[in-house]
Amino acid sequence: MAESTTATIVGGSGFAGGELLRLLAGHPDFEVAQATSREYANKTVGSVHPNLREMDLRFTPPTDLESVDVLFAAAPHGVAMDHLDEWQDAADTVVDLSADFRLETESQYDEWYDGHSAPEYLDDAVYALPELSREELYGADLIAGGGCNATATILGLLPLAEAGLLDDAHVVVDVKVGSSEGGAGGGPASSHPERSGVVRPYAPTGHRHEAEIEQFLGLSVSFTAHAVDMVRGASATCHVFPEETPSTGDLWSAYRETYEDEPFVDIVAGGSGVYRYPEPKAVAGTNGAEVGFELDEDNGRVVAFSAIDNMMKGSAGQAVHAANVALGFDETAGLDQLGLHPVGSP
Amino acid sequence: MAESTTATIVGGSGFAGGELLRLLAGHPDFEVAQATSREYANKTVGSVHPNLREMDLRFTPPTDLESVDVLFAAAPHGVAMDHLDEWQDAADTVVDLSADFRLETESQYDEWYDGHSAPEYLDDAVYALPELSREELYGADLIAGGGCNATATILGLLPLAEAGLLDDAHVVVDVKVGSSEGGAGGGPASSHPERSGVVRPYAPTGHRHEAEIEQFLGLSVSFTAHAVDMVRGASATCHVFPEETPSTGDLWSAYRETYEDEPFVDIVAGGSGVYRYPEPKAVAGTNGAEVGFELDEDNGRVVAFSAIDNMMKGSAGQAVHAANVALGFDETAGLDQLGLHPVGSP
Amino acid sequence: MAESTTATIVGGSGFAGGELLRLLAGHPDFEVAQATSREYANKTVGSVHPNLREMDLRFTPPTDLESVDVLFAAAPHGVAMDHLDEWQDAADTVVDLSADFRLETESQYDEWYDGHSAPEYLDDAVYALPELSREELYGADLIAGGGCNATATILGLLPLAEAGLLDDAHVVVDVKVGSSEGGAGGGPASSHPERSGVVRPYAPTGHRHEAEIEQFLGLSVSFTAHAVDMVRGASATCHVFPEETPSTGDLWSAYRETYEDEPFVDIVAGGSGVYRYPEPKAVAGTNGAEVGFELDEDNGRVVAFSAIDNMMKGSAGQAVHAANVALGFDETAGLDQLGLHPVGSP
Amino acid sequence: MAESTTATIVGGSGFAGGELLRLLAGHPDFEVAQATSREYANKTVGSVHPNLREMDLRFTPPTDLESVDVLFAAAPHGVAMDHLDEWQDAADTVVDLSADFRLETESQYDEWYDGHSAPEYLDDAVYALPELSREELYGADLIAGGGCNATATILGLLPLAEAGLLDDAHVVVDVKVGSSEGGAGGGPASSHPERSGVVRPYAPTGHRHEAEIEQFLGLSVSFTAHAVDMVRGASATCHVFPEETPSTGDLWSAYRETYEDEPFVDIVAGGSGVYRYPEPKAVAGTNGAEVGFELDEDNGRVVAFSAIDNMMKGSAGQAVHAANVALGFDETAGLDQLGLHPVGSP
Repeated sequence: MAESTTATIVGGSGFAGGELLRLLAGHPDFEVAQATSREYANKTVGSVHPNLREMDLRFTPPTDLESVDVLFAAAPHGVAMDHLDEWQDAADTVVDLSADFRLETESQYDEWYDGHSAPEYLDDAVYALPELSREELYGADLIAGGGCNATATILGLLPLAEAGLLDDAHVVVDVKVGSSEGGAGGGPASSHPERSGVVRPYAPTGHRHEAEIEQFLGLSVSFTAHAVDMVRGASATCHVFPEETPSTGDLWSAYRETYEDEPFVDIVAGGSGVYRYPEPKAVAGTNGAEVGFELDEDNGRVVAFSAIDNMMKGSAGQAVHAANVALGFDETAGLDQLGLHPVGSP
Repeated sequence: MAESTTATIVGGSGFAGGELLRLLAGHPDFEVAQATSREYANKTVGSVHPNLREMDLRFTPPTDLESVDVLFAAAPHGVAMDHLDEWQDAADTVVDLSADFRLETESQYDEWYDGHSAPEYLDDAVYALPELSREELYGADLIAGGGCNATATILGLLPLAEAGLLDDAHVVVDVKVGSSEGGAGGGPASSHPERSGVVRPYAPTGHRHEAEIEQFLGLSVSFTAHAVDMVRGASATCHVFPEETPSTGDLWSAYRETYEDEPFVDIVAGGSGVYRYPEPKAVAGTNGAEVGFELDEDNGRVVAFSAIDNMMKGSAGQAVHAANVALGFDETAGLDQLGLHPVGSP
Repeated sequence: MAESTTATIVGGSGFAGGELLRLLAGHPDFEVAQATSREYANKTVGSVHPNLREMDLRFTPPTDLESVDVLFAAAPHGVAMDHLDEWQDAADTVVDLSADFRLETESQYDEWYDGHSAPEYLDDAVYALPELSREELYGADLIAGGGCNATATILGLLPLAEAGLLDDAHVVVDVKVGSSEGGAGGGPASSHPERSGVVRPYAPTGHRHEAEIEQFLGLSVSFTAHAVDMVRGASATCHVFPEETPSTGDLWSAYRETYEDEPFVDIVAGGSGVYRYPEPKAVAGTNGAEVGFELDEDNGRVVAFSAIDNMMKGSAGQAVHAANVALGFDETAGLDQLGLHPVGSP
Repeated sequence: MAESTTATIVGGSGFAGGELLRLLAGHPDFEVAQATSREYANKTVGSVHPNLREMDLRFTPPTDLESVDVLFAAAPHGVAMDHLDEWQDAADTVVDLSADFRLETESQYDEWYDGHSAPEYLDDAVYALPELSREELYGADLIAGGGCNATATILGLLPLAEAGLLDDAHVVVDVKVGSSEGGAGGGPASSHPERSGVVRPYAPTGHRHEAEIEQFLGLSVSFTAHAVDMVRGASATCHVFPEETPSTGDLWSAYRETYEDEPFVDIVAGGSGVYRYPEPKAVAGTNGAEVGFELDEDNGRVVAFSAIDNMMKGSAGQAVHAANVALGFDETAGLDQLGLHPVGSP
């Protein structure tokens, strides 16, 4: 039996850190060496993540990093750019789930974030979404996880982009997300009495994920995000107006062409029963994405749908998938969870 | 003291019928004479609607109509067109909450519905939304309630239309609705295990409410509706691309111009705190509508938001409001309920 | 027309303060003079409570109290005992919604709370629940609102107590409550991701409301409270083992005897349809209480159910009801809201 | 590699059938030969269960049973007793998830159900809960799955029974369950608008699961069940009044003694953080049970808590666990799913 690959999780007490712990605990090739948490140092991981009560591991302070093969960082935006040197000293491969290395140029960070303290690494970073960057991921040593809303949007639109249907197209993206996007801290808007039952526009315009979408799809989209009442999940409805309206057959060809060999993407477009289009709850807890479409001939519109679990395909699952590719493991290793049915608002 | 105006509610055991009962029970000018229900005839209204347990009224069969001043009909689509003669014999004024008299021409019913059995009445009917049709409502004897999704959309876009900003504009409408839209019956997709926690595209294209929107705003919109996890509420996010991009000041002027004297519409656009844009839960249980907007200069886009309670402003409340106008009552009579805070998913 | 009674609300930005504002805004006899908030001083009440956007009132600092007729205090426990002198200088009648004056003796505060700084007032205070203390409330100048869980429990058990069925009985009370009980602040346990979908024992034993229950019913109960997924509502299931098992007829007599003249209490015990026993959502947003029961002959048990809206009958509604009694107003003035059907998790 | 054990799932389109499919799809020792459904015959399992879209299997009519090693039956109560002969012809081992073989004697079925059509098999059946019946399960050929509420209750109380603390004890069991207990069909009470946000007593007295609890624990309990707003989960709060009050140390000893070697039961009793007592959402999607307790010395009460996923430990997971024991597989085979954190109302 091969020796396990060792991993450290920086920021292990947050939601994404907990998901990394869950995934690596069931991963055949990884062994978790450390999970760090300033606030919960020396406490068991199960004291924060009730699903991990059986796991025999305590948080360590983030200052005591052991040497490992892979370091997964699930820290707030801005931390990775300040600690990358230190992390690269501790690990051969760094997978950062924050926004710090997603964009390609310093000027993008100047425009969309508060600048960047380590722009010299931007060139090295590979975007974690294998559906976009599988080739570059092989052997990569700095991997940057995509944003959850950007991931949902990119997956929904990628077949159209590859089929040339986005050239000079007009695109509106209307996203609905769950409360776990706000992280474990949360503020007043995230408290249960205020957050329950909402349809709340929280980023009407200017959402930072627009930058990633534009970077990878090569077009500017009109993006608006809403909070809805679920915990996990991101759903993107993309209203696309191509220069020339495709047929439904063209759309099926485009989606199949892009995704037929992808292990984590299902095309769900019509059919019978309750679940005829992509829904986040159908993929909750899994690394799966559902994409689908409907043609609106009257308006010359393609409605492209995409649904993911923001904590999985939109964060921790994507990171593990990318690491699997980078290290040459089976792509689905540790990511073969099936979703649940029925399921409420996971 | 003036004599009360008598009212019959046809279809009193459904959700909209129950709302009509609640509203008329608290209305200073109306007295409920009858509420009909085939299934629950002779049972108390409180046996179906637990909020009306104190009300001393039993359902009557729909065949025994007394003479009253106003008949409110909350029957499924298609019933009103077959029974209008009979209802007009029983009442001076008929307010129909179904789709049967919303559209102006028989050809629209041929296109969007299954035709029409009483097209000769289409000319007489006045659309129930006073923000659109106040003048025509005075003294009207056939009033047609608007669709909930159409109402939300029209209210969000009306100021832009009146300001000329929809001329040759491109408009995408992305709607999110609660489960009460499915009515009291519901099918498998409406069962709690399947319907909880959803973001489910249920009308990706071709929603019938497009016809009403086009009829009143004079332009075709690209419309998509999603089911989300709330019981009451309809929220419309309208992505509008005018020929020339207005300023934020232009938008404020337009919305104030349209709504400054409207008793049921609030403009909510920015500001501080948790509730900065329209949200259905802020108006749940009330006849209020919240409308708001945000300018996306980069994309030449106006994002117009609108939120209503689909059972109230989108159905029963709108009907009572229209009747108030038609009969010369105070417009807000019986409709002065305040919403709740905090509130979950009402 | 009589002059209005003026009222100040101390702690107007919290959930209970917001409810007081909503109720007094619609009350025929009260006029709100002030609502205080340290944090939101000078902001509109609508900036915190979206349901009150139409209300033309700004918060004032809690230090600038005007002279009014009635002061309602919705401050955290411990504040009232330190400020009562000041409040009584400003108002003829003080209605305190906290726990500070609910119990009768200093020793109870020593046992269940952290002592009391103004025990000399305990004798004067009248418990706000008119079903218990109507006679004492007439003309009272210090009124102490009951705890929400205690209120639900007392209302469910009172008929049994009055019928002698609690003498030497054994009583288990299992309570389920919504997230609004945690108040507007909330901590990690109240964040939406952690609080959604829970059935969480939060007070397995030793809940402070036991003291009130014992004080009024004269017996010790075994009390356990659970958080469940709703925003408003408290539901008490009381498992009662009387010395001698009554008949169902005895129970109907007992409940009718106690509540037949009570304007806010409905008996819901069996029958047909969906809503056969008390449910918090049937009374959400109202001052109503539903009580009911079922006899378990095999086990010599009476199961008594009680459901209220914790923000209303369990807090602000109870306070206004008590003030109505104390000042000689119609008991239901300002409290005639009907609940909603359908309604989700209000 | 050993040959797989073949399995048929009767009733594969229901919720429990879907869970069996999910579990067996990931089980190292089983291979699904057939899943039957009258209504969905010839449709893919993924057309009903969206989490199983990748599974290459179509439902077969229930009349065409192949020979297999194990037949799992997830049919409504009453079907198994009429078809057992046929099923035993088709399979060496039958695991029935209904109530048909849970009780030991015909007279129990006469008392609690509508009698029994095949009482001669009652003696052969082994109850599926390995924590109760591990020894009898080895080699069993007829296994009867426990009821979800009974399972939750029994697991919470078993340590007390084994420690003698239930001898002559008085026990109240207050259960809260999710909507999946109502099955895939559902009626009006299960529709989303009526079922959302509830705390609804649905079985105040006389719940059939009392029979199982009494059968295994040897005492009659006072049982009441409530519907609450979650999809999966059953939570039992057991209020136990032993003849002599134990110490907290006694309780820890009792629970550890019973469960220290059990792979699926965790003791959660106090500690810090948000998750200090058993909660169904912490085990949702898994075969785990959480049990815990708190001592209420003032009332001589032990409050015992228990939480399971009703579809898993309370149904399909329990069945697979029992089959693992019966066939000599690793007990946790196919049942090593970890729960999710955060998670809403799974």
